Amino acid sequence: MSIAAKDTLPPLPAGFLDKLAAIVGEAGLITNPADMIPYLEETRGLYEGTSPAIVRPANTQEVADVVRACAQADVAIVPQGGNTGLCGGGVASGEVIINLVRMNKVRNVDPFNYTMTFDAGCILADLQRVAEVNNRLFPLSLGAEGSCQIGGNLSTNAGGTSVLRYGNARELTLGLEVVLPDGQIWNGLTALRKNNTGYDLKQLFIGAEGTLGIITGTVMKLFPLPRERHTTFAALRDVEAVLELLSRARSASADTVATFELIPRIGLDLALKHIPETVEPLTSAHKWYALIEFESGESGSGLGAVMEGYLAAALKDGLMVDAVVAQSEAQRQQMWFIREAMVLAQAPEGASIKNDISVPISKVPEFIRRADKAAIALCPSVRPVAFGHIGDGNVHYNLQAPVGADDATFLARWNELTEAVVDIVRDLGGSFSAEHGIGLLKVRELANFKSALEMDLMRSVKSALDPKGLMNPGKVL
Amino acid sequence: MSIAAKDTLPPLPAGFLDKLAAIVGEAGLITNPADMIPYLEETRGLYEGTSPAIVRPANTQEVADVVRACAQADVAIVPQGGNTGLCGGGVASGEVIINLVRMNKVRNVDPFNYTMTFDAGCILADLQRVAEVNNRLFPLSLGAEGSCQIGGNLSTNAGGTSVLRYGNARELTLGLEVVLPDGQIWNGLTALRKNNTGYDLKQLFIGAEGTLGIITGTVMKLFPLPRERHTTFAALRDVEAVLELLSRARSASADTVATFELIPRIGLDLALKHIPETVEPLTSAHKWYALIEFESGESGSGLGAVMEGYLAAALKDGLMVDAVVAQSEAQRQQMWFIREAMVLAQAPEGASIKNDISVPISKVPEFIRRADKAAIALCPSVRPVAFGHIGDGNVHYNLQAPVGADDATFLARWNELTEAVVDIVRDLGGSFSAEHGIGLLKVRELANFKSALEMDLMRSVKSALDPKGLMNPGKVL
Repeated sequence: MSIAAKDTLPPLPAGFLDKLAAIVGEAGLITNPADMIPYLEETRGLYEGTSPAIVRPANTQEVADVVRACAQADVAIVPQGGNTGLCGGGVASGEVIINLVRMNKVRNVDPFNYTMTFDAGCILADLQRVAEVNNRLFPLSLGAEGSCQIGGNLSTNAGGTSVLRYGNARELTLGLEVVLPDGQIWNGLTALRKNNTGYDLKQLFIGAEGTLGIITGTVMKLFPLPRERHTTFAALRDVEAVLELLSRARSASADTVATFELIPRIGLDLALKHIPETVEPLTSAHKWYALIEFESGESGSGLGAVMEGYLAAALKDGLMVDAVVAQSEAQRQQMWFIREAMVLAQAPEGASIKNDISVPISKVPEFIRRADKAAIALCPSVRPVAFGHIGDGNVHYNLQAPVGADDATFLARWNELTEAVVDIVRDLGGSFSAEHGIGLLKVRELANFKSALEMDLMRSVKSALDPKGLMNPGKVL
Repeated sequence: MSIAAKDTLPPLPAGFLDKLAAIVGEAGLITNPADMIPYLEETRGLYEGTSPAIVRPANTQEVADVVRACAQADVAIVPQGGNTGLCGGGVASGEVIINLVRMNKVRNVDPFNYTMTFDAGCILADLQRVAEVNNRLFPLSLGAEGSCQIGGNLSTNAGGTSVLRYGNARELTLGLEVVLPDGQIWNGLTALRKNNTGYDLKQLFIGAEGTLGIITGTVMKLFPLPRERHTTFAALRDVEAVLELLSRARSASADTVATFELIPRIGLDLALKHIPETVEPLTSAHKWYALIEFESGESGSGLGAVMEGYLAAALKDGLMVDAVVAQSEAQRQQMWFIREAMVLAQAPEGASIKNDISVPISKVPEFIRRADKAAIALCPSVRPVAFGHIGDGNVHYNLQAPVGADDATFLARWNELTEAVVDIVRDLGGSFSAEHGIGLLKVRELANFKSALEMDLMRSVKSALDPKGLMNPGKVL
């Protein structure tokens, strides 16, 4: 897939790039094609971006000045963070790219308020480290954390592995600073848990994928640093058992379950095959596993005994058939390594069609059963790899090409197979994009999935905030 | 205070009430002045409402039909729930009132998804009971829970006593059904934890106080039912100690602190004086207290020992000077009774000027110190009663009239004293309305407090969704 480019947008006005250079300086403007490549490439290789210039402002005022210049000249903008998105939301097709990589300051840490204020260009993993130095946890965590920027995480309302206990990016956010499409700066950087004074405007920009403005700063929640983690890798009776097991885990642990990840045998097999350091976690093979982690803020809290009791009851009642508890941080890392290796192992195995869906938690087993049936009916040897954040009802339902299949032939069936999966998602009241967003990849699906009224409401909001339609055009709507 | 009424709005078109009666039936329409009184009276007696008719639809379709009829005839609407709001958001000044009292059905409980779907007219306490029958906790809890409706709670983004652990009404909401200002029904009733498919429209209606549409249904989160609660009533070294005490409590309990309420001696004294069943909790008097509660989903979890350890360390380190742990549910209820009695005792003591403010948690002691100083400078014998949800930075900063003062004379200084408090709130990056909203009471303050840009953004949103301005006119904006 590549998108129609440049010629769909008018050329830049004469002298426009000089104007931008005057705002951001030489270091802030990239127009050399070779240096532009990292900003134009797209993670999955689905799109080829094109842009006349990458602008890298150093602070909020520079972002505002650049956006105002663009607005005055009717030049369209693609806001961009770490460029790690999975749906093409940061891909330019001729627009000027504004990348926030130079805006990477932590502005304030307030441990007693359990908050941190920072620039939108900060790398997620850096923020985790700053919080830890301050004896606090910044819980947002996901695969791309080493290079993604928090502004992108907010613009896509990122999820990840700790949503069950701590919430998604939206729920972690208390305040925002945003450069609006006309270049005005909205300062909504409050660090308050309660603030019922009119419409909660920050909610508009979170998850809007840069179509309503550019997030330049944010105040987000911190939490007590966990002192103790109890982690188990358990083999399940069957996929239906996850419902009762999750429910029991939440009750037993006083809702301190931080992780409840479903892992299928095929995912483990792929990891063992392709990723060298993967270790078989249990003595025999089982169809379904869960990686479950409880957290405590103090060591010696008794939570270890709670987990032992939880597992003993689950084994006795036949909901689990085997389980091992990590006895050291090294063993815990080994268990988490399986979760990550399973994702990495899918590409070396060949093509796969990826669905990031969610359904009510209570419908997860039914979804997997029905989706498997539908996919196999269309493509008898297809290999479903269903894994993910069951505590959030979020299943990464990936369809691995049949053994020995030609990748291109298989990928040609993307729409057909995806539509079969999405039909079941719709029937179960689910979402066809749980945490990855819409970007370019799912614009058509969005229009198919949502009611005409909902699309109208979204367009009303877009028109109200970005009447010229210059912010990330063609994305989402 | 009473608001200019009826004559500011044009009379209803001929035959309009018959049209409404045809939609909602005789039982759904009240025009008899005596029967209208409960819908026109306002909790604090600050406003006298007037309305040509109270419409009580029985279901979403009837709400939609009534709203469409109003929109077609340019008739303005006040949406109303339990009419328990503290800022006049449900007061009519000539508009037709649409009250949802007849929409009180629980539509669905999904224990494995930890969600419940219900009509917006359900009484909050009823929802708590339905959840409990299903072995789940619906954590929203506040003073008016016996009569307030959940639709009003959502429209004001209600807070209450369990925000620290479970979040406010917004954070508890997964999906909404809304009748829009033109009478269309938006079905956003998803029961999903993750759903990144375009703008999160439900966020617009939560906290909008009925100015953008009428919430008719909702899907909200449930939690494991606590099996064990450990509750302490502790005397603090001083108000500064709350910061370290809250932080230690969050860490020690693995963040299962459900309550951290600040109580001043004067509040306890007023309760002991005016509310007969109040019991002195400790053997000697202290200036500041905290009511702290940890929760566990399983009995025998070891959390009792965690609380004992927490208190022992706090006493040893001098952060607390005395503490008692509830040894029975009856003792626990006694402690909570103080918290409630303190609120009830303020009216019998005489007039008071109420401020519902929030600041970053780390600024709470500074706020109280500076606000006391400012209030006493203006009115030397005024008695500040500062209490509230310290875990959220939310202080109910009430100024009790001096002993023997004339109520009317004292209340005449409302604006002057409030402005002095709000100036400090602004300086500390706080909010002048933490959980009560804006309604009519704080419209002027909102315009003073927010930037012109923020007011413009709110007006853009209002115009986009309610171009005729018929939904709860004069409220918020």
